[in-house]
Amino acid sequence: MLLKILIKMYRTHTCGELNANHIGQAVTLSGWVQKIRDLGAVIFIDLRDRYGITQLSFNENNRDLLEQARKLGREFVIQAKGKVVERASKNPKLPTGDIEILVEELEVLNESEIPPFTIEDETDGGEELRMKYRYLDIRRNPVKNNLIFRSKVTQLVRNYLADQGFIDVETPYLIKSTPEGARDFVVPSRMHPGHFYALPQSPQTFKQLLMVGGMDKYMQIVKCFRDEDLRADRQPEFTQIDCEMAFIEQEDILQTFEGLTKHLLKEIHGIEIADFPRISYEEAMRRYGNDKPDIRFGMEFGDLTEAAKGKGFNVFDQQEAILGIAVPGAATYTRKQIDKITDWVKRPQIGAKGMVYVKYNEDGSFKSSVDKFYSQDDLSEWAKITGANPGDLILVLSGNLDATRAQLSALRMEMAERLGLRKPDEFAPLWVVDFPLLEWDEDTGRYHAMHHPFTAPKPEDAHLLDTEPGKVRANAYDLVLNGNEIGGGSIRIHDKAMQAKMLNLLGFSDEEAQKQFGFLMNAFQYGAPPHGGIAFGLDRLVAILGGQETIRDFIAFPKNNAGRDVMIDAPDTISQEQLDELHLRIVE
Amino acid sequence: MLLKILIKMYRTHTCGELNANHIGQAVTLSGWVQKIRDLGAVIFIDLRDRYGITQLSFNENNRDLLEQARKLGREFVIQAKGKVVERASKNPKLPTGDIEILVEELEVLNESEIPPFTIEDETDGGEELRMKYRYLDIRRNPVKNNLIFRSKVTQLVRNYLADQGFIDVETPYLIKSTPEGARDFVVPSRMHPGHFYALPQSPQTFKQLLMVGGMDKYMQIVKCFRDEDLRADRQPEFTQIDCEMAFIEQEDILQTFEGLTKHLLKEIHGIEIADFPRISYEEAMRRYGNDKPDIRFGMEFGDLTEAAKGKGFNVFDQQEAILGIAVPGAATYTRKQIDKITDWVKRPQIGAKGMVYVKYNEDGSFKSSVDKFYSQDDLSEWAKITGANPGDLILVLSGNLDATRAQLSALRMEMAERLGLRKPDEFAPLWVVDFPLLEWDEDTGRYHAMHHPFTAPKPEDAHLLDTEPGKVRANAYDLVLNGNEIGGGSIRIHDKAMQAKMLNLLGFSDEEAQKQFGFLMNAFQYGAPPHGGIAFGLDRLVAILGGQETIRDFIAFPKNNAGRDVMIDAPDTISQEQLDELHLRIVE
Repeated sequence: MLLKILIKMYRTHTCGELNANHIGQAVTLSGWVQKIRDLGAVIFIDLRDRYGITQLSFNENNRDLLEQARKLGREFVIQAKGKVVERASKNPKLPTGDIEILVEELEVLNESEIPPFTIEDETDGGEELRMKYRYLDIRRNPVKNNLIFRSKVTQLVRNYLADQGFIDVETPYLIKSTPEGARDFVVPSRMHPGHFYALPQSPQTFKQLLMVGGMDKYMQIVKCFRDEDLRADRQPEFTQIDCEMAFIEQEDILQTFEGLTKHLLKEIHGIEIADFPRISYEEAMRRYGNDKPDIRFGMEFGDLTEAAKGKGFNVFDQQEAILGIAVPGAATYTRKQIDKITDWVKRPQIGAKGMVYVKYNEDGSFKSSVDKFYSQDDLSEWAKITGANPGDLILVLSGNLDATRAQLSALRMEMAERLGLRKPDEFAPLWVVDFPLLEWDEDTGRYHAMHHPFTAPKPEDAHLLDTEPGKVRANAYDLVLNGNEIGGGSIRIHDKAMQAKMLNLLGFSDEEAQKQFGFLMNAFQYGAPPHGGIAFGLDRLVAILGGQETIRDFIAFPKNNAGRDVMIDAPDTISQEQLDELHLRIVE
Repeated sequence: MLLKILIKMYRTHTCGELNANHIGQAVTLSGWVQKIRDLGAVIFIDLRDRYGITQLSFNENNRDLLEQARKLGREFVIQAKGKVVERASKNPKLPTGDIEILVEELEVLNESEIPPFTIEDETDGGEELRMKYRYLDIRRNPVKNNLIFRSKVTQLVRNYLADQGFIDVETPYLIKSTPEGARDFVVPSRMHPGHFYALPQSPQTFKQLLMVGGMDKYMQIVKCFRDEDLRADRQPEFTQIDCEMAFIEQEDILQTFEGLTKHLLKEIHGIEIADFPRISYEEAMRRYGNDKPDIRFGMEFGDLTEAAKGKGFNVFDQQEAILGIAVPGAATYTRKQIDKITDWVKRPQIGAKGMVYVKYNEDGSFKSSVDKFYSQDDLSEWAKITGANPGDLILVLSGNLDATRAQLSALRMEMAERLGLRKPDEFAPLWVVDFPLLEWDEDTGRYHAMHHPFTAPKPEDAHLLDTEPGKVRANAYDLVLNGNEIGGGSIRIHDKAMQAKMLNLLGFSDEEAQKQFGFLMNAFQYGAPPHGGIAFGLDRLVAILGGQETIRDFIAFPKNNAGRDVMIDAPDTISQEQLDELHLRIVE
């Protein structure tokens, strides 16, 4: 048997922990050369690792060492042995700012080329360059801290749910392609030529089968995959906190995951939040034009349709909906400022035809772009409806109801952004409930599941399934935080006949339904308990809890908007041998 | 805003928690009908959920309810309200055995067909049937408890490593195919026709890049994928506890993960284990014929090559190696028993040509199958070499060294199994270290990496790389538990030139090396720190910690030996539309 060998010991301490209490100690540090200040007779080096920065000092008492230090470059990896001494000029901003290491031995562990961008909190590297050299980007505090933060959040989530009796179960990644939902990534099977696995868009059916299996409280933090045409800040692979419970109703789920969210806000930000508000989908659309409203600020919609019609203003008279918001304190906006807002809503991404404004002056008078058609009394009525106060600016859009809601919702968010009302350190969660079960899709001429095909109708609405399916509401709910849907779920169907009916409504023939979801419907025949669940988008949740909105900054190795990993250069071609083994040919 | 609605409350308690302290309480339980005993005037039902079993009782005081109960079937899902009462005949084996529920209200939440196998600890269902109805199999205690156990192990692992400063970082699943190692599963890219992602065989290069990125201590419990021709108990997707550390040496890693393993054994089994033994690969092969020896028992190899040659026994005289083990207390085996062992080693899976035995009788005499050639003194020498005591049976195999070691190792394990020496509740971990860096592959006529192409040679052996690469040892190590490799890792190369040289040795041209691993070698140019890591096979670790060896029993939804999920019937065909979008055609 061998004996344990002595550890060479790359470091006795990290670069973040030494302070005045350590003065006089002999220490060994390892890390990266962040900065070199060569003052001739003295050289100072900022040595950096994951934990912080410590100053190394070299002087003429040891000329060899001074020369060695002079040859170091940025991002060299070095090991330094020396004594902790008090600094001549202290740096109160640095936890280690009271001390420095008077170096006695120096070893270069690895050299470095000059990095393609500066390893600083504010770097000179652009997005694409930073992604190509992501391993250097991760050395920067903002990225490093985001990854550490993410790790902390997942640990909090896992332990909280474990304490609540949830079992962490891994579901398979090589599953079966299903036509409902987004497009699947598929994986050709070599052992079964012509057959494919699919990567899961979510573990939905498996977690339901775990409920049928009696597992009763399931959780998993799991990668999911969607082959969608990519949009900014959407990733082909993303992470879900996936949960399911049996013998529960909607209320149990809301309370459990409200508890989780409160726990996170408390542990991370020290914020105690009262019970989350709940509003119905219909109410959210009416008040905010949006099913994921940011309620950190007001500017709720006022419905001016009745008040504004029939006054001779042709544009309004023809419209289905006339909706307005009161922008606080913006009555003093100049014509030029307002024109810019008008241009903004007319951009193709928003698509409004035009915008009407009403300045509610501090003196109580009104000045609008439609003064020709509306009296001061009319406008006073608008102010009442939109909740405007003197000093506010009322902005009004009109047109088809759905489109106008979407446009005004975008405008509401934009104005809040401009006014600094979307404070990253303020957290305003709410539940949106009572979603419609189905939505009509004009393109395909059929209903689509608003949540997914396994969502149960509200029992009191189920009788409408045959007659007015569009009116059926679901026991489906979203958890919204600061204008983002961070979680969504539903009570599921647990009855074979109801599941078959739902799949028929979604355009599946009986045969297709059986081929795709037969295993689930069969399972429902063997004592499936009532169940439901929720899934949180971890990438977004972490970003929002971190006070940011770009999920890519919280993913270690994200893909770009074309779905490419520019660092490893994937996807890439594969060999003819691989294609042959898979019985595949590429068609140009 | 909506008010919180009242929870219907499927249950006030689980089926595992009621006892004499609850007598008199009104409770609601939900669960599955495990068993119905209809005594005419009284019906008893065992109600089961994840937490246990509680007896429900119905009697003639409520005839309607009695009739309802009579109509229930096995695995029906029901809700029962009633009062906790003391049982007439208590069941001390059941935590709830002192009480029963006198049911007052009964609701069928879902009916059930007769399940295809019994939901009992010992079921009548065969493997294939249980896999097809895995959701029913999971209701059985053995499977359910394994999944709960797995969840507990991963929680212990994560929290232990978090306490040690490890950061949980998710690495991507859609990466790039590399020709080294096993075969990749690939994922065709729709947005980049003719290009493919690959699913990771391990996050190896990403975790190394995290070290280059300064992350310093990384951990992840992560799915990995290998498209291998499947063997029994091997899965195309499997789970790894994946770890990497920077600024460390082998010793740091051994101590860290020995600490983790001790922690698991302590927390799970209450076992305190002293420092793990360490043996070199060479020593493991010499003493056990195997680099993952089970050291719960002895039967170490004795090398009889010198002692047994030159005595006129032709069979031995021609062989490279003659190796024996002493099977404790087996000298009394009959001729028939020994013949059976001989037949066993001659099976094609083992491949021995024959076996020699020596009975070391209790009276000190020897009786062997080669008495014609060897004296009592000769055999006494064999006993000394194999460590045999009176009453033992010495079994001897001979032939080519490598083959003989493998055969005798298999025999050693088989004899230990037969003698009950492989006790599932005993845990004997050890480290095997100093693995060879490379192994020669006759088929391809080149060296293969014994661990993987990123493993560093031992500094003291590096000079042999150009002259005798086969003799170079690596700073590579395996953690072995009860005859299974549960973890393995190495100190990595962190120098570009060394990595290039290694890839050349493995048959990569400079161009291929650059195309496949250029991103990693480039990263090494920007200040890569010394680093190393380890990965544990979670499926096997959990199985062994659970006192079992079949990993499939610890996976919620495993694939069969043909890589199929027989429950969901995957892999499956995909639509022509999907193939067209991917620019692929299937070649017959």
